[in-house]
Amino acid sequence: MNLESLNTPAALIDVARMNRNIERMQQRMNALGVNFRPHIKTSKCAPVVTAQLEAGARGITVSTLKEAEQFFALGVRDIVYAVGIAPAKLAQALALRRRGCDLKIVADSVACAQAIVAFGRQHGESFEVWIEVDVDGHRSGLDPEDEALLAVAATLVGGGMHLGGVMAHAGSSYEHDTHDALVRLAEQERSRSVRAAERIRSAGLSCQAVSIGSTPTALAAERLDGVTEVRAGVYVLFDLVMHNVGVSRLSELALSVLTTVIGHQREKGWAIVDAGWMAMSRDRGTQRQKRDFGYGLVCLENGEVLDGYLMSGANQEHGIVSRSGAPDHAIEQRLPIGTRLRILPNHACATGAQHPAYQAVKPDGSIETWPRFYGW
Amino acid sequence: MNLESLNTPAALIDVARMNRNIERMQQRMNALGVNFRPHIKTSKCAPVVTAQLEAGARGITVSTLKEAEQFFALGVRDIVYAVGIAPAKLAQALALRRRGCDLKIVADSVACAQAIVAFGRQHGESFEVWIEVDVDGHRSGLDPEDEALLAVAATLVGGGMHLGGVMAHAGSSYEHDTHDALVRLAEQERSRSVRAAERIRSAGLSCQAVSIGSTPTALAAERLDGVTEVRAGVYVLFDLVMHNVGVSRLSELALSVLTTVIGHQREKGWAIVDAGWMAMSRDRGTQRQKRDFGYGLVCLENGEVLDGYLMSGANQEHGIVSRSGAPDHAIEQRLPIGTRLRILPNHACATGAQHPAYQAVKPDGSIETWPRFYGW
Repeated sequence: MNLESLNTPAALIDVARMNRNIERMQQRMNALGVNFRPHIKTSKCAPVVTAQLEAGARGITVSTLKEAEQFFALGVRDIVYAVGIAPAKLAQALALRRRGCDLKIVADSVACAQAIVAFGRQHGESFEVWIEVDVDGHRSGLDPEDEALLAVAATLVGGGMHLGGVMAHAGSSYEHDTHDALVRLAEQERSRSVRAAERIRSAGLSCQAVSIGSTPTALAAERLDGVTEVRAGVYVLFDLVMHNVGVSRLSELALSVLTTVIGHQREKGWAIVDAGWMAMSRDRGTQRQKRDFGYGLVCLENGEVLDGYLMSGANQEHGIVSRSGAPDHAIEQRLPIGTRLRILPNHACATGAQHPAYQAVKPDGSIETWPRFYGW
Repeated sequence: MNLESLNTPAALIDVARMNRNIERMQQRMNALGVNFRPHIKTSKCAPVVTAQLEAGARGITVSTLKEAEQFFALGVRDIVYAVGIAPAKLAQALALRRRGCDLKIVADSVACAQAIVAFGRQHGESFEVWIEVDVDGHRSGLDPEDEALLAVAATLVGGGMHLGGVMAHAGSSYEHDTHDALVRLAEQERSRSVRAAERIRSAGLSCQAVSIGSTPTALAAERLDGVTEVRAGVYVLFDLVMHNVGVSRLSELALSVLTTVIGHQREKGWAIVDAGWMAMSRDRGTQRQKRDFGYGLVCLENGEVLDGYLMSGANQEHGIVSRSGAPDHAIEQRLPIGTRLRILPNHACATGAQHPAYQAVKPDGSIETWPRFYGW
């Protein structure tokens, strides 16, 4: 199978780029002296995760218990479920642990810790729990200075659970676009997480893991003293949002959507393609960044960027490709019906999720279908 | 199975509401004297489409050949693939027709018509082709006055293909929010489509079908003289975009996402839930409408709207629920950890696509799992 034999739309992974991305991140983590635990929510795809583990990753991060189920079935034991657990999901987490999965769960409130303790005691299970720390006001987690931090820790340990560590995610890193700002945020992520661990230890409790990470801060961090591991996800494929943040060159973007020109509106300078938001996702992550790429940046079938051409609009199975600025009234000749293009997406996690499989393009041009899963 | 036994997040269909929506649309179409051909891209779900057909629909509309394959396998023969066909997809279309599927394909250019003719002749197949007409500058199609309209028709007929009719979609209807504007657009969609058909007929060619439709124009049209059938999709579930357009009450929205509260940020007045954009989709269709609902409008588990509470932010598996205006600092007490909520989505087609199945909630409270498919 080769590129020409693929139906469109299709999600392509450039395997050489992906492998370079994996190598780059793993080497950084090795140099900084921390373990690396990739967040596999980006790909949900066995060959991708296998490549990450073979490069040196230790364990994985998941965003759903389904991901934990799927990768545990493939032999991955060491898994962090990095979303605060809903009490009703504890039965599923227990079942995984009883089957031998070294699953860590996350809490950031006394109420959640109490629910874990109650369920754990009822079933004779000492769950390993990591406490989520808020390092940048982005989303979840406890402020490292919050009294509740020690209350959660005491609730867990007093209730017979295993307090495994603290974890944080500097999700606000996506809002920056300078190296200096990312370096500062990475240090903030590090220092606040380490501070939370130290407060727990000062209270006489064990807190082994200090787990932090986001792709931009992981690539910007200059030192990681006190951190035991880093988590990152989207680095494996990169995307236009990461390009705008400043952590990847366009030539490092490993995911694209192959599409075919199916029509034109000459007056408007539009080419219509058979990839719409169903194939790209509705993610408009570059909308408020320094360069708005619409629904994606257009490349020729061979991957060469067609500078200035964007997917400027999308319906479910129609995309509108147009030139930024003045309309290209010769677009019908430039991109005739049947022309195949590749669209670089805003957000690799969102675009990949729209596709039942990736088409992995190897350096020799051959293609392998890599299934991915979805759902909960 | 009942609501309490479901894992979250889950996509719920309120079956009673869905059936009322189906009935409403079918009765309108009957009263207007036209056939109704639902666009099944909204649900991609057999029980939903079965209900539409049992209510009186004649044939279906699809947005991908995979949808055609799946529903032909379930016994639906009369199918319009309503996206201009890429020449490379003709082999798949041919295979469907050879297996007995009455598949109609769409073209809006001489180049595409020529490709169909060349492929059809090569394989001895007279494809049924409908010509797409542009009625509102929304996307694809030929202006009814465009010389190319007759050129496409002549190319198809001269090449031995079956010119089955014209089709149009007034997609700009989503941008309106008054009944009068929709009535005017519906009439524009009707009159321009009929005009295209008349021009083709005046040239001595047959043009049987005049197929138009979008949910808002279908519900606003006052007369459909000259039209043979109407297509619409999202009406079956409705959503917040349609509510803003003015064609559905909140109590008619049949799709919601069930989710669980997993944390809080008291200072900010946030509840964190386990439905993020993966469960809601990234669709922000209400962003530029008269009321921006964020990622969705929050309801209690029983479906009662929690007025003023929106999903104001979303990451992959985290949603942020907050009150519009002043933060609700009592949100931790109002919506404690473990509370289950339903979120009404912006766009039913996009939200449904994120889920491998709907959970169909019947009037007696029992639940049936209705699988849906995705991909191409």
